[in-house]
Amino acid sequence: MMAARRAYVRPLDFARGCVEMAHGGGGRAMAQLIEDLFARRLGNAYLGQGNDAAVLPMPAGRLVLTTDAHVVSPLFFPGGNIGCLAVHGTINDVAVMGARPLYLAASFILEEGFALGDLVRVVDAMAVATREAGVPVVTGDTKVVEKGMGDGVYITTSGVGVVAEGDELWAGDRARPGDQILVSGTIGEHGMAIMAQRESIGFAGPIVSDTAALHGLTAEMRGSGAAIRVVRDPTRGGVATTLNEIARQSGVGMMLYERSLPVLPEVAAACEFLGFDPLYVANEGKLLAIVAAADAERLLAVMHAHPLGRRAAVIGSVHDDAHHFVQMTTAFGGRRIVDWLSGEQLPRIC
Amino acid sequence: MMAARRAYVRPLDFARGCVEMAHGGGGRAMAQLIEDLFARRLGNAYLGQGNDAAVLPMPAGRLVLTTDAHVVSPLFFPGGNIGCLAVHGTINDVAVMGARPLYLAASFILEEGFALGDLVRVVDAMAVATREAGVPVVTGDTKVVEKGMGDGVYITTSGVGVVAEGDELWAGDRARPGDQILVSGTIGEHGMAIMAQRESIGFAGPIVSDTAALHGLTAEMRGSGAAIRVVRDPTRGGVATTLNEIARQSGVGMMLYERSLPVLPEVAAACEFLGFDPLYVANEGKLLAIVAAADAERLLAVMHAHPLGRRAAVIGSVHDDAHHFVQMTTAFGGRRIVDWLSGEQLPRIC
Repeated sequence: MMAARRAYVRPLDFARGCVEMAHGGGGRAMAQLIEDLFARRLGNAYLGQGNDAAVLPMPAGRLVLTTDAHVVSPLFFPGGNIGCLAVHGTINDVAVMGARPLYLAASFILEEGFALGDLVRVVDAMAVATREAGVPVVTGDTKVVEKGMGDGVYITTSGVGVVAEGDELWAGDRARPGDQILVSGTIGEHGMAIMAQRESIGFAGPIVSDTAALHGLTAEMRGSGAAIRVVRDPTRGGVATTLNEIARQSGVGMMLYERSLPVLPEVAAACEFLGFDPLYVANEGKLLAIVAAADAERLLAVMHAHPLGRRAAVIGSVHDDAHHFVQMTTAFGGRRIVDWLSGEQLPRIC
Repeated sequence: MMAARRAYVRPLDFARGCVEMAHGGGGRAMAQLIEDLFARRLGNAYLGQGNDAAVLPMPAGRLVLTTDAHVVSPLFFPGGNIGCLAVHGTINDVAVMGARPLYLAASFILEEGFALGDLVRVVDAMAVATREAGVPVVTGDTKVVEKGMGDGVYITTSGVGVVAEGDELWAGDRARPGDQILVSGTIGEHGMAIMAQRESIGFAGPIVSDTAALHGLTAEMRGSGAAIRVVRDPTRGGVATTLNEIARQSGVGMMLYERSLPVLPEVAAACEFLGFDPLYVANEGKLLAIVAAADAERLLAVMHAHPLGRRAAVIGSVHDDAHHFVQMTTAFGGRRIVDWLSGEQLPRIC
């Protein structure tokens, strides 16, 4: 790569420079951006192959493939930024299938005029997240759109994982009457962190996004031997929407216990102040697990032993219901239907 | 899926409707868009799994992974639209590694207010392209950004393929002095089709993009048994930039023969009129192949026998050069250096 570097006339100005249209043109400026910014931070042997696609060893098993566009606004928020969110979100979509995440691909749509310094912060956060997770970005792409045709940076990450041949898949259509519903921790932090940041609302302290990679936790859950049916990360639409999806896929009903839902006091306060229900607010480091009743306590103990599952709780159960309703026993002993999210509650939350 | 469909209050209005923020919110409106638009057109057994990731059989071999964001402007052009381009581009990035493309993942960033009718045209083109190629979209994602934060639709496609264990990889660092350089057909059509459309320039007839999936051609090339070193699709930056990349990766020089470069007369005329050099103009259905000299004629014959290689030609050769220059013997017998593209020649060409 050094031969071409010598030919770069201007070094990239990370302090005051901006993304220019030429950075997406396929020529020398793009090569410089890729080399001096992306490769330097995300570099690994696979990314260094320098071809249009990465060639990778693949362990035996079933392949798991996922993709997610990330358009969160603002780009930076308490607890992270779009870079680590894009890594965590895609790892989690692989992990909740019961698969081991192996590789990531990252595609950037940059807006002309976006500060190179901000792009560095984003890519640095991706680099830290991939290193901590042990899941490398092995291939990527960069495009630039004119000012006013984007919003700084959008990142699409795709993820590949593997499910060993003997392992059961976790899938949305496997919930059965009698199963227990677990959540891995407190809900609503990511959505309210974004919302508080966006509205410049100051509460007692900042609400910090829960963005995190869950594959370590899911590996422990897999290792427990519990009869796990479904695992999902309740992102857009929150716990309520995710459970409705599962109820529909599995053809069952669900009953939640309002008293059992773990919510941080500052999130509860912010939700009340802004008129949100934490059940519909996005999470980025939490999972829902549906497990055979006989194994629920065992699985809960395994989750409690993991740093990302310390506040795990049983929050409900699965039952027969031809209407596939998700209902909730309220704190006052009443009952209400927990419907799908309808309309747009929180735009561009992830 | 039917249970939830009954609950949709308004059917999607494909004639006059637009993308709304709620279509990205994760709730009922998004489920409706995915079900009635994406799943109906792109549907297959894998996409129908309905989980956050697709679970897929994986043949033995090395995994090939690629990703590309597509931001072409205008979205519709003679010969195709952003939908088929996103399918072809990603299949080609897998194919040029010498791999067999297996699966695609598609992520959409939609702009609020984008006409649903136009989105249907885009997704229909994707559907046709995936069916013709035999490579399904197995998982996807949809996000919506506010009006003025996008440009109708951006599509990021990621692709997975496999290289059988015994097969040699084609890679950019394998060109050797003495090798011959082949191109699969006429160059510059895609870039000039976009450019002519964008500038509303009418020539004798419209220039039609060459967008096409090349994995059928690469499979024939693989089957020929020729000692193929490198295959690349010369997209952004064109033939000149792609060859410079290969020269750098392989540590060699190259000599092109201007007389041998196949260019359609209408593309040559448009390039001259608009001040472009076809060597730098993007292609979306062409490939460059570098092959051992002894096998060049055999490979050329195999390419000529394929519909996408009918106008294949030997356009140059590889030689020793410490500077890794790509040079060209001009039609008048002179010599010039064919440098990297510097700056931005054609923004948002793919």
